[in-house]
Amino acid sequence: MEELRPEMILEPVGRVESPLANPTLKTDKNGLKSDLSRDTVKKECEKVKNTVSRIRIFEPWTPLLKGIEDFSHILVLYWPHLIDPEKRQLKQVHPMGRKDIPKQGIFATCSPARPNPILVSAVRLLERRENILQVQGLEAVNQSPVIDIKPYSPHYLTVKDLKLPEWMANI
Amino acid sequence: MEELRPEMILEPVGRVESPLANPTLKTDKNGLKSDLSRDTVKKECEKVKNTVSRIRIFEPWTPLLKGIEDFSHILVLYWPHLIDPEKRQLKQVHPMGRKDIPKQGIFATCSPARPNPILVSAVRLLERRENILQVQGLEAVNQSPVIDIKPYSPHYLTVKDLKLPEWMANI
Repeated sequence: MEELRPEMILEPVGRVESPLANPTLKTDKNGLKSDLSRDTVKKECEKVKNTVSRIRIFEPWTPLLKGIEDFSHILVLYWPHLIDPEKRQLKQVHPMGRKDIPKQGIFATCSPARPNPILVSAVRLLERRENILQVQGLEAVNQSPVIDIKPYSPHYLTVKDLKLPEWMANI
Repeated sequence: MEELRPEMILEPVGRVESPLANPTLKTDKNGLKSDLSRDTVKKECEKVKNTVSRIRIFEPWTPLLKGIEDFSHILVLYWPHLIDPEKRQLKQVHPMGRKDIPKQGIFATCSPARPNPILVSAVRLLERRENILQVQGLEAVNQSPVIDIKPYSPHYLTVKDLKLPEWMANI
């Protein structure tokens, strides 16, 4: 079956330039751990929603942006480069580092520490100038490698009758 | 700056088991090309929306699924393994292979042929049994390597006041 297994190696197509220097949550050996109080985390999330960052696409890929300026929103795939690679082995964590929420499997959380740490975020595209995209609401910290830019396509991203578990609805 | 560049190598965490054997659109040297008529493409898309597939998570990662069954929808990241790796060099294509739509940059399309071919799809989670997820609406063809499973989080995926270019709104 080995011939069915493609080599899946990623190349950064750009970099995030953001005022956010550190992730809100930090991981320790035992899983996700926030070093901030619950209220501060809430405030941090609000701050992120208003944050304006830039995505600098590396020159060879500039032609791939043609037409992106016609979308109000884009999907950004990026790599959380400050997460220790060892954390890719984590299995279950308290969401947001909150001990009052039972541990969940990594696939049931948005933890940046995951087997293939690719984070996905839908953000508003404020402006495009050549190879620079200005966006609002991107949680990626400064210098995060960008893996892909996609248009926000309702076909792939919008769902009907969404139901969330209580713990996530409360966060 | 080389020390800032993480190794970004992915490992499949599972496999798609789907009745879909071939992608709707096939690529040739010049870009995306559909070998189906416009009406047939529309019908294919409808078919995909109703398709039920299974995602088989490989055993070591089963504990990472704990709690996923509490979500009505999940985000699936997968690798389009039937796309020729050479197609990762494509810069611009006619969306859906339609010559009547002007060429767009790959980042402004959902083309599976892209520098880092990671496809993202929000689908309904019908059932979880141990390491098997049954989902509805997944466009991934049979045997596609699964890269990540995430809960559908409105925080990262829902947007307000979405505006699309005419060509995508029409498709």
